[in-house]
Amino acid sequence: MSKVVVYPVNVEFGDCDPAGIVFFPNFFRWYDASSRNFFRTCGVPAWRDTEKSHGIIGTPVVDIGSRFIQPATYGDKVEVHTSVVEWNAKTFVMLHQLKRDGVLLSEGRDTRVFAIRHPEDPARIKAIPIPEDIRELCS
Amino acid sequence: MSKVVVYPVNVEFGDCDPAGIVFFPNFFRWYDASSRNFFRTCGVPAWRDTEKSHGIIGTPVVDIGSRFIQPATYGDKVEVHTSVVEWNAKTFVMLHQLKRDGVLLSEGRDTRVFAIRHPEDPARIKAIPIPEDIRELCS
Amino acid sequence: MSKVVVYPVNVEFGDCDPAGIVFFPNFFRWYDASSRNFFRTCGVPAWRDTEKSHGIIGTPVVDIGSRFIQPATYGDKVEVHTSVVEWNAKTFVMLHQLKRDGVLLSEGRDTRVFAIRHPEDPARIKAIPIPEDIRELCS
Amino acid sequence: MSKVVVYPVNVEFGDCDPAGIVFFPNFFRWYDASSRNFFRTCGVPAWRDTEKSHGIIGTPVVDIGSRFIQPATYGDKVEVHTSVVEWNAKTFVMLHQLKRDGVLLSEGRDTRVFAIRHPEDPARIKAIPIPEDIRELCS
Repeated sequence: MSKVVVYPVNVEFGDCDPAGIVFFPNFFRWYDASSRNFFRTCGVPAWRDTEKSHGIIGTPVVDIGSRFIQPATYGDKVEVHTSVVEWNAKTFVMLHQLKRDGVLLSEGRDTRVFAIRHPEDPARIKAIPIPEDIRELCS
Repeated sequence: MSKVVVYPVNVEFGDCDPAGIVFFPNFFRWYDASSRNFFRTCGVPAWRDTEKSHGIIGTPVVDIGSRFIQPATYGDKVEVHTSVVEWNAKTFVMLHQLKRDGVLLSEGRDTRVFAIRHPEDPARIKAIPIPEDIRELCS
Repeated sequence: MSKVVVYPVNVEFGDCDPAGIVFFPNFFRWYDASSRNFFRTCGVPAWRDTEKSHGIIGTPVVDIGSRFIQPATYGDKVEVHTSVVEWNAKTFVMLHQLKRDGVLLSEGRDTRVFAIRHPEDPARIKAIPIPEDIRELCS
Repeated sequence: MSKVVVYPVNVEFGDCDPAGIVFFPNFFRWYDASSRNFFRTCGVPAWRDTEKSHGIIGTPVVDIGSRFIQPATYGDKVEVHTSVVEWNAKTFVMLHQLKRDGVLLSEGRDTRVFAIRHPEDPARIKAIPIPEDIRELCS
């Protein structure tokens, strides 16, 4: 059984487009906030601190998919239910289920890595093996 | 052969996160802008006009996926190469290839529908069969 | 004494720029969310409902200013304290004080109008006198 | 006479709100992009490079104001005309005039500083006197 951490979101007027429904890139913004909230809740420090301790600057997404089942609009209170559903050697997979009153509105699944600055070029990033201590905090 | 329409993007400081690279939901913002630019270039009017002529308020995404191959950062000039790769009865699939100097940085693929306001509840939306005239403009 | 309504914000990783601090347009996004939250808390319906009852589609900003006193970063929990500080014939002024642990980080002040669609051109908007019933709800 | 640098913007569907007009925080996003474009055009390197050469991580805004004269909507092509209108010891003021077909839609004015990381606390930032070489490039 994996941990599930719930992140609440107020859908705002400015999150919606001229059709009156959430502009879909905002779902990804919320999935990402929920991902960061998941780590924080599990006890993983801010990336500015892990940069000092582990060199880790974040968990960039290498692949993401989402389906959108029902639209949301401003005034809605929704929740993102986030968990890690897969740990691999260098990647892990998070599942984000966005619900309103228990009804699934969208579902995203992203593959991420733990990244450090590239030793030869600080403008690039480099994936490292999943840190054992972080994995334990999150399981 | 399907039409490919290219949408140029200047990557801005505010598009990047504390790791110094583009915050990934912005890629979806650019895919969407490129989708709208594709239709405009093919001669499809603004949605506020198709609402009057066809009832169509837009092309909401029902499913989207993207992989991120290389990061981008501010100052980069990138291009989204967009085409329709599949037309179905009620859905169609767009491919978005984001390139910098010809190198593929990310690739997104979304499934969309043409939507009208739901006849019984204007707060909801409803997919309609692909309009033949729009399909022809885009092929 | 005017009503003050407090809107809580979690500052997210994606809200911050490569300098590691909040990208300032997000402060305006939060002021606007807090403005809408103020009206909701006072009992003013969603704009999609006031459009039917009053023709009102929202409260566009005609002028806004903000000063930024201290930066915020991801992981911060902040609050926007919002009130109406001035009611005029056709405009009103809102004050937004953004605080972290009681310390003022930024302060915004916007002048807004209640807008309807322009009777001759639905693509334009038109300011109307402040509706008395809404003003009473908010005072 | 100060330099004026013009930054073009395509207004996108996702930049607009349920009223069908640009969600106003996006104007600030464009002012900021135009500010960065101004420096780039004048020959000032990316902040990641000035951090190495001068310690400068950017030009955070300490105060900004904007008035909104006419709304914009998706499909519009607009331009931000940006200049530095005031140089002080530690601050400078930029003017951003956003126009569509030569007509002024909005006007913003921001006061900025050149910032380095605070020597005692890298999480904080510190204003420095305007660098003479940068000022010369921009005048």
